[in-house]
Amino acid sequence: MIQVAVMGHGVVGSGVTEILLKHSEEIKKKVKEEIYIKKVLDLRDFPDSPIADRFTKNFDDIINDDEIKIVVEVMGGLNPAYTFVKSCLEHGKSVVTSNKELVAAKGAELLKIAEENNLNFLFEASVGGGIPIIRPLNQCLAANDVYEIDGILNGTTNYILNKMIKESQTFEDALARAQQKGYAERNPAADVEGHDACRKICILASLVFGKHFYPESVHTEGITNVSLTDVEYASAWGGAVKLIGSVKVTNGKQEIIVAPMFVSNECQLSSVDGVFNAILVKGDSTGDVVFYGKGAGKLPTASAVVADVMDCVTHQSERRNIMWEDGNDENILPFEETAYSMYVLANTDDKESAFAAANEAFGSCEKLERENAAADELAFITPVLKYADFEKAAENFEKCGAKVVSNIRIAVI
Amino acid sequence: MIQVAVMGHGVVGSGVTEILLKHSEEIKKKVKEEIYIKKVLDLRDFPDSPIADRFTKNFDDIINDDEIKIVVEVMGGLNPAYTFVKSCLEHGKSVVTSNKELVAAKGAELLKIAEENNLNFLFEASVGGGIPIIRPLNQCLAANDVYEIDGILNGTTNYILNKMIKESQTFEDALARAQQKGYAERNPAADVEGHDACRKICILASLVFGKHFYPESVHTEGITNVSLTDVEYASAWGGAVKLIGSVKVTNGKQEIIVAPMFVSNECQLSSVDGVFNAILVKGDSTGDVVFYGKGAGKLPTASAVVADVMDCVTHQSERRNIMWEDGNDENILPFEETAYSMYVLANTDDKESAFAAANEAFGSCEKLERENAAADELAFITPVLKYADFEKAAENFEKCGAKVVSNIRIAVI
Repeated sequence: MIQVAVMGHGVVGSGVTEILLKHSEEIKKKVKEEIYIKKVLDLRDFPDSPIADRFTKNFDDIINDDEIKIVVEVMGGLNPAYTFVKSCLEHGKSVVTSNKELVAAKGAELLKIAEENNLNFLFEASVGGGIPIIRPLNQCLAANDVYEIDGILNGTTNYILNKMIKESQTFEDALARAQQKGYAERNPAADVEGHDACRKICILASLVFGKHFYPESVHTEGITNVSLTDVEYASAWGGAVKLIGSVKVTNGKQEIIVAPMFVSNECQLSSVDGVFNAILVKGDSTGDVVFYGKGAGKLPTASAVVADVMDCVTHQSERRNIMWEDGNDENILPFEETAYSMYVLANTDDKESAFAAANEAFGSCEKLERENAAADELAFITPVLKYADFEKAAENFEKCGAKVVSNIRIAVI
Repeated sequence: MIQVAVMGHGVVGSGVTEILLKHSEEIKKKVKEEIYIKKVLDLRDFPDSPIADRFTKNFDDIINDDEIKIVVEVMGGLNPAYTFVKSCLEHGKSVVTSNKELVAAKGAELLKIAEENNLNFLFEASVGGGIPIIRPLNQCLAANDVYEIDGILNGTTNYILNKMIKESQTFEDALARAQQKGYAERNPAADVEGHDACRKICILASLVFGKHFYPESVHTEGITNVSLTDVEYASAWGGAVKLIGSVKVTNGKQEIIVAPMFVSNECQLSSVDGVFNAILVKGDSTGDVVFYGKGAGKLPTASAVVADVMDCVTHQSERRNIMWEDGNDENILPFEETAYSMYVLANTDDKESAFAAANEAFGSCEKLERENAAADELAFITPVLKYADFEKAAENFEKCGAKVVSNIRIAVI
């Protein structure tokens, strides 16, 4: 029998205990040991839980219990999760977490402590919820040079964009709908401003390139400025606006970004609907591989956590070889040097001369048309430009009297 | 240093040696041991290979070499692969194979021998080529009840159907094109008659449901009878014809089938293009998860083989817990009891009375229309019927003088 503790009894945590209890027989058959939940840490009371007697409000009850070998951290947030997880690893307990904020901020440090103590630190559920991605990346694709990952990593924003695309709802209306349905938090900033997607692409990048990518180092744009007009032009262009987290090798460095992008209908990612996530991995041997599924939710996420717990049980003597070093920003391509073709939406009194000015400023542009366009709106796609050059060009373009109201990258996937 | 042998130097085998040699440093870093190719077994000569001196034509050179701990079988076909693999396992060597025919025919037996000898028998590459699917199913989804798998498991037939759908090529022309491009064998029977897809769904079903599913027990239809007319009606109906391998739980038994089906445009599988594969897994916790990528080809398949080899290296003392029991057909729902809504194409001199007869025979049908329909053609969708009932109804229907020329299942995915 293996004794485990679960820290946090919120959405994911209650899912973890539910699965461990409900599937206990199958799990025992698979890992050849019974997994017993000894303690659940939460400040709240859950008198109706079938294991109510095993709840505690005191972390010491876990850390000082030498029989507890595996601790599940599903509290979320950086603190006290970080202190608790670190302490667990230092006290000889393997840790499984779904906490992307923790892994994105402290992954390298915690992996190092885990390695020094020959323990597992696993976090499959931190990216893509129930979609297996961390383990396939680490193992199945081990014989590959993975050189690019592009993902729809946040279900909330994908749901909102989808409502805008399919039902012509405004961002505000779609957000309100997402909040009603429980897909978005009351404070939706982490989702709609791209921070959640940023943490996830940082974790994937760290895993693949072996150095820690910190969210602070990543240019991150959310979807709060995406308008229905933008969405319609994306459709006219032959694609859809998606919030993309991307990391790829450019000039020997890693180019990493989170931003809304025009994704062509030819690309698998364009058709990802609702709260689903999809992660496209490009390897030199495998070519394109896509992983698709529910990126969040109680049971999908909890099932990924439990799979990690089971993995800990079968890898007690020999830890899972998952590791990356600490990183600085030296390996990251400076944002100004990242180059994209851009969609630009401008207001102008004179479309013809403004489009001529656009061609002058950005180089040869492709004009976009949509039905019911406003009289003063001009939309076009620029050639590929480094961001620094794009900004200069936009400044020059505006000298014609037009005003840039929107610009969105064209994804190259 | 771990010594390995590779049996077979065809497309996949040469890819395996290429990756092992090219990525030797990264692989060593990952598994903390050097992987050294000691022998390559092939009846042909390869004087230009960088490891030409390690080739042998004699299996005894491998089986009698106690230093060889892992053997890669990439010869394909049932014999002599089966005899060789069995012998390797009996002589204390772990085996990695890409051979779906072998695993589908002898999986349970070989897994048992591997377990008895505390060895690994791994076959990630046998399904989905470079797409990680066996390992995620076995591990990441371990905390799930997987109750259904539907897949586009054969790239050749998907390429052919795609050419029919997108370019209105006939089956014969599309097949010829696939052969030209090297996607189809000169003898394409295993692909176009569905046997390859059948082996793969058998392997996935065995893994998920824990009992061996034998290809002989699975109702298997290929795509040789799919006409351009059928393809056009699928499109008019709002979907596409795809060759689907499917297994799901029905009335406590497993319903397993390989057949062309109408797949709705709403389903992720409908948009899988060209030689790509996609596998949709439904679990009680995860919901729908889709794995997508190149299902065949030298390097994708070889990279999956090498990942398995690396897994063998890191799991020398404690074997990978992958296992299923031998099976009989008792757990398989008899084919006559499988129930589908059906697309029917019929020839008739009198469409109106034939459609009335269809409604009489099958129950309330939905008529399909297409542009440029022939004067004597009638197409409709029947209600859900058990196959035995469908056959009887079709017989009754034909009494009106109409002749059923085509019938294809409507996928429920």
